[in-house]
Amino acid sequence: MVWDQERAERLQAGLQEANFDALVVRLPENVLFLTGYWPMSGMSWVLLARGEEPVVLAPVGEEEWVERAVDPHNATYYGWGGVSDRPPDVQVQGLLTELKRRFGLQGKRVGYEGSFETIAPPYMSAENHISEVPSTRMLRTVFGSDLSDATDQLHLWRSRKTAKEVVALRLANEVAALGLQAFVNAAVPGAKEAEVSAAVEAAIYGQGTGYKGVRRCRGWAEVMSGPDEGAVSWYQFLISSDRRLQEGDTVLLELGTIVEGYWSDLTRTVVAGTADDRKRDAYSAVLEAQQAAIDMLWPDVTGAQVHAAATRSLQARGWGQYFPHGTGHGVGFRYHEPFPLFLPGFQGQLAEGMVVTVEPGVYEKGFGGIRIEDNVLVTANGPVVLSEFPKALVETQRTSRNRETRHED
Amino acid sequence: MVWDQERAERLQAGLQEANFDALVVRLPENVLFLTGYWPMSGMSWVLLARGEEPVVLAPVGEEEWVERAVDPHNATYYGWGGVSDRPPDVQVQGLLTELKRRFGLQGKRVGYEGSFETIAPPYMSAENHISEVPSTRMLRTVFGSDLSDATDQLHLWRSRKTAKEVVALRLANEVAALGLQAFVNAAVPGAKEAEVSAAVEAAIYGQGTGYKGVRRCRGWAEVMSGPDEGAVSWYQFLISSDRRLQEGDTVLLELGTIVEGYWSDLTRTVVAGTADDRKRDAYSAVLEAQQAAIDMLWPDVTGAQVHAAATRSLQARGWGQYFPHGTGHGVGFRYHEPFPLFLPGFQGQLAEGMVVTVEPGVYEKGFGGIRIEDNVLVTANGPVVLSEFPKALVETQRTSRNRETRHED
Repeated sequence: MVWDQERAERLQAGLQEANFDALVVRLPENVLFLTGYWPMSGMSWVLLARGEEPVVLAPVGEEEWVERAVDPHNATYYGWGGVSDRPPDVQVQGLLTELKRRFGLQGKRVGYEGSFETIAPPYMSAENHISEVPSTRMLRTVFGSDLSDATDQLHLWRSRKTAKEVVALRLANEVAALGLQAFVNAAVPGAKEAEVSAAVEAAIYGQGTGYKGVRRCRGWAEVMSGPDEGAVSWYQFLISSDRRLQEGDTVLLELGTIVEGYWSDLTRTVVAGTADDRKRDAYSAVLEAQQAAIDMLWPDVTGAQVHAAATRSLQARGWGQYFPHGTGHGVGFRYHEPFPLFLPGFQGQLAEGMVVTVEPGVYEKGFGGIRIEDNVLVTANGPVVLSEFPKALVETQRTSRNRETRHED
Repeated sequence: MVWDQERAERLQAGLQEANFDALVVRLPENVLFLTGYWPMSGMSWVLLARGEEPVVLAPVGEEEWVERAVDPHNATYYGWGGVSDRPPDVQVQGLLTELKRRFGLQGKRVGYEGSFETIAPPYMSAENHISEVPSTRMLRTVFGSDLSDATDQLHLWRSRKTAKEVVALRLANEVAALGLQAFVNAAVPGAKEAEVSAAVEAAIYGQGTGYKGVRRCRGWAEVMSGPDEGAVSWYQFLISSDRRLQEGDTVLLELGTIVEGYWSDLTRTVVAGTADDRKRDAYSAVLEAQQAAIDMLWPDVTGAQVHAAATRSLQARGWGQYFPHGTGHGVGFRYHEPFPLFLPGFQGQLAEGMVVTVEPGVYEKGFGGIRIEDNVLVTANGPVVLSEFPKALVETQRTSRNRETRHED
């Protein structure tokens, strides 16, 4: 069984081109990328040798998850968590040494994840397992001095998704839409930011599990509202407070969603109650800027050009000075992927199969924050938006059931 | 301002005893431990020199969070996320070099987190920032060859909590109880596992934010039910599926809760509908075993002795063969802390101020899984249970409002 023939072939071509004889990875995002298996606890390893299928080392208990993606003969398990199990690192070192022998990797160039300093969590996202000095030393012991950092290649390869990966990202966006619907239902005047966020996450976890066969999903929702909190909602951190939404507030939802390991990154903004003219103007300016950037998403366009399109659009509408951040980034195997980026000076080019976010916004103290973000696939025939949730301005209304929303036409 | 005088003094004593002239850390759990500041994005660093107060380097935007814990003159901020900001690593290297000069650390022994391979997430838990080869290399460039791994010391120091840290852990357990109440309300026959988990997480996020001034909290809930899923619920991974609870099922909730950076780790088990005699027997056997282990939590007792007490208790009740895992672990700065562990052969001793989990359980295919877990403080006067949620067996009943539960007396 090969999980994704297109990915398998591209990986082999990549290994050859970059002159790696093998790759060894343990980060959940790269285990997923190499095999289609998304680790539960993040304690798995994968070795992919030139001309071979990937081999998984995983803790016992994950068999069912591993073997949805790789054949049993390509999987080895080590005991963990039982009172008599040997330390995982000792077991993994032994198993990797065995694989090195099996694949004749003595003196060969083996790539690893030496510079991944921003990482996605495993399914069990409350705790992460990473390689610090001991694991890196272990890899050097096993593979010798020909261990080479493959971080740049992995990021570049990851940036162009296969057809099967695009299907997975569409599904992630569909599950995320369950959360977006909960957001427009819950973000009414009087609601607490954190309650709105909780409703969004509950919709994703509760309704998403089982949706079209989805077995593992989770959302991270942050709601920031009003003239002050909304105004800082472009920072790298985001926080839902116990502030209650006021009539006329901008209410911004930043939503990360993971479905079977694949990420969606979306933002929607509503107005609680009724939007005044300036909020309507800002909202339509952001929407226009987003469309201007989306229209640029063709192969060979640079990240800087995409950002310039959004910026020019906002400037033409008089909102340029309120747009402090980049226009987007790669997305898929992680919430934020480093290639491509839509920033001034970023000369990296788009290519077919890339999936990116497009997320212009405006933020002003005393006014609030408005951002609209979708995930878009780059194709030879132009951009295809993967997130289909409506973007017309929503003014939320508290009703007797606290559940109704009014969409504009 | 010193966040926690007791912690500050212990850290200084620890530095002296372990012969470190300074510590440099970036993992959110250690930033919290050294300063009381829990990073938003996980992109902060702390340098603590002998005889000095800790100094924080943080990305702009986190000022308010940093300065709840350290004085402004002990905090420095670097630009991040804006289109014209220089790369964080370059800025951090410059700032650390400056601090090295300020504190006269040339040729001095600086401890770092070189072997933290299991880590807690920052508040923004959808993405983690870690030190891989580039950051470790940067630290070596700044601090020279006297950079030393302080991982073992950090873990040992972290294991004994201060009075202020215990207050924080009590609060984490109180917030977690909001989730436990949601669990017993929601875990009725017919409910979907993932919906129950979602309700638990929503209670913690939605009600916990603002509870007694709490500004940041989050829960990770996994519900496993029935004769098969329940039976494997002791694995290192846990998963809520779309299975609907059946009459007579054991329903186990594993719940990690983080409140302002401090962790609670709790488990409760209910029976959906009515418990048969064997489930009642198992439940009371687990409860007895938990009490037997709790009764052992006095200074100088070894981890092996605690585990033996739980094991003997379950054996006496005929359930010994169904208890495959350890009896508990340290908890507080992370979900699972490595010291102490309650396992056969663990000779490390308890000490005043340690906070540990006590979590015996029984699991059998065709029967289900039952585990009860609380967090307990070790004092000179014996164990103090920090989690006060009731433990009498609950049989949940679907009612017209799907909301009632029946407690036994």
